[in-house]
Amino acid sequence: MQRFINNPDEVVEDTVKGFVKAHSDIVRLAENPRVIAARNAPYQGKVGVITGGGSGHEPAFIGYTGKNMLDAVAVGELFSSPTAKSFYDAVREANGGKGVVCLYGNYAGDNMNVKMAVKMAAKEGIEVATVVANDDVCSAPPEERKKRRGVAGEIFMWKIGGARAASGASLEEVRATAQKAIDNCRSIGVGLGPCTLPAVGHPNFQIEPGTMEVGIGHHGEPGVRVEPLKTADAIARDMCRIVLDDHALPEGTEVAVLVSGLGATPLNELYILNDTIEAEITGRGLKIYRTYVGNYFTSLEMVGATLTVMALDAELKELLDVEVHCTALL
Amino acid sequence: MQRFINNPDEVVEDTVKGFVKAHSDIVRLAENPRVIAARNAPYQGKVGVITGGGSGHEPAFIGYTGKNMLDAVAVGELFSSPTAKSFYDAVREANGGKGVVCLYGNYAGDNMNVKMAVKMAAKEGIEVATVVANDDVCSAPPEERKKRRGVAGEIFMWKIGGARAASGASLEEVRATAQKAIDNCRSIGVGLGPCTLPAVGHPNFQIEPGTMEVGIGHHGEPGVRVEPLKTADAIARDMCRIVLDDHALPEGTEVAVLVSGLGATPLNELYILNDTIEAEITGRGLKIYRTYVGNYFTSLEMVGATLTVMALDAELKELLDVEVHCTALL
Repeated sequence: MQRFINNPDEVVEDTVKGFVKAHSDIVRLAENPRVIAARNAPYQGKVGVITGGGSGHEPAFIGYTGKNMLDAVAVGELFSSPTAKSFYDAVREANGGKGVVCLYGNYAGDNMNVKMAVKMAAKEGIEVATVVANDDVCSAPPEERKKRRGVAGEIFMWKIGGARAASGASLEEVRATAQKAIDNCRSIGVGLGPCTLPAVGHPNFQIEPGTMEVGIGHHGEPGVRVEPLKTADAIARDMCRIVLDDHALPEGTEVAVLVSGLGATPLNELYILNDTIEAEITGRGLKIYRTYVGNYFTSLEMVGATLTVMALDAELKELLDVEVHCTALL
Repeated sequence: MQRFINNPDEVVEDTVKGFVKAHSDIVRLAENPRVIAARNAPYQGKVGVITGGGSGHEPAFIGYTGKNMLDAVAVGELFSSPTAKSFYDAVREANGGKGVVCLYGNYAGDNMNVKMAVKMAAKEGIEVATVVANDDVCSAPPEERKKRRGVAGEIFMWKIGGARAASGASLEEVRATAQKAIDNCRSIGVGLGPCTLPAVGHPNFQIEPGTMEVGIGHHGEPGVRVEPLKTADAIARDMCRIVLDDHALPEGTEVAVLVSGLGATPLNELYILNDTIEAEITGRGLKIYRTYVGNYFTSLEMVGATLTVMALDAELKELLDVEVHCTALL
């Protein structure tokens, strides 16, 4: 492993410490050292907005903590759900007396621990609403959409939910708008190379050189097929076809596009993908309102990329335009 | 090569197209397709600020184009200097009638081509001042500092120079302030894994597994030593020692810190490095004014990281605080 680590079992500990030191103008460590909070959270009279998830996806999840975004984030071990206690403590850090919405991804551990945290919060009189992201098209067929995993669409869900909460909306309004955001998202991942958990010391799955895995998940979950590696053009067309066929948006729909690297893919290659992605999306009669290209939701040093397309309406456009102050997003 | 590319000889072409499509609210392609300009540049009555360099370092150089930053950037082939004509065209795109400053890195090709571009501009009556970055400590001894290469310290030079120009300063004032910024920077790179130019198809240098190269350059230029891979703690202490011994700053000096990945290193590992870097810097009695951690200046999919420390005074702090609107920097 050619990696910058100390004790492989303390990667998350060391990451969180270095993160808080770098960005103490934006975030703070909560009493629970597995919870990052926005520096000035909680905001009295504002709905709190939280998430949580496994580490190794940086800048997700912690990098989206900040003004008009997430108020607190529960931090799990590498590729593992945060504990129920950490989700609960994130709720407490974000609670400004108007309830808290937890916007998270559809994974078994997260589902279980968020459910427990909601009960713990209820006992303390804190109402917690939840939205579960399931934007990953290849992880289940359309008729079982609720079984799909949450991936980079979560970033749009957080941005929209955070902006709605900052506008003074009620808990139910924030929940409903965040739900609309993720319902309007479809994502796909393509993997060209695996990643290694430092404590394991060898790749947690294999991608043979000269091949790629279409529909891969954020932890190497199998996709819909393994096939010979194609050109960037062909891959981008395939990603667009899978996402847009599932989305089935009317011509003229405005969309936001997010192209994220999975960790070890150079930024210039994401731009190469975007060149074709833009052509494919506009070729279908859709209008691109904004494009994000970068390492927004990664998987350690996995080689690969994800595409997320969010359909917009007037409300979502306005909320997407709200300025935020966090480390991961302009 | 597990990469998202089309024709290996058209990587830069495809990158630039995808970049401009993604960020047309901030940048535009100039008439010369190897020049990116800020969308609203040139600004009449403002000193123009440009740079240029080889591709493959994204988000450098193009991602720093934008408001209060760079007005135009000359784009070279992968790891190759832009042509003199491209530097000259970048000057023209940035010229608002008050002269243009070219802030670039110390490499033979760039030096030659900038020099020619300055002459071409002079013939057209455009005055061009230059500042050459040489912040890479390990590339030459202190007594030959002018021979050192420019690396990630260039980002601070652009940010300071761009802010000074935006304040309405004269060409000579902008030049002098940008020169102060880079004079106040020291950088070091550590390489853990090589990178591959797509048109070549194999790594352009070797780093044996279990070893690392201390003092490596942005194109794999040899460092001061190859040694067994150490812990992140030990590597960070070594980086700080090399940078700060060369810098020799008085106790109490305020500094800006930039920790950049070289392409394929996960973001969480940069935070692990930063945990020790922060301790080492403050342990020497220096005060950290601001920290940047991310993939700010990369080398395709090289595994590794760089550390840059810039000493601040009141002027540099004020200029560092000026808000910018570009794709690569908050």
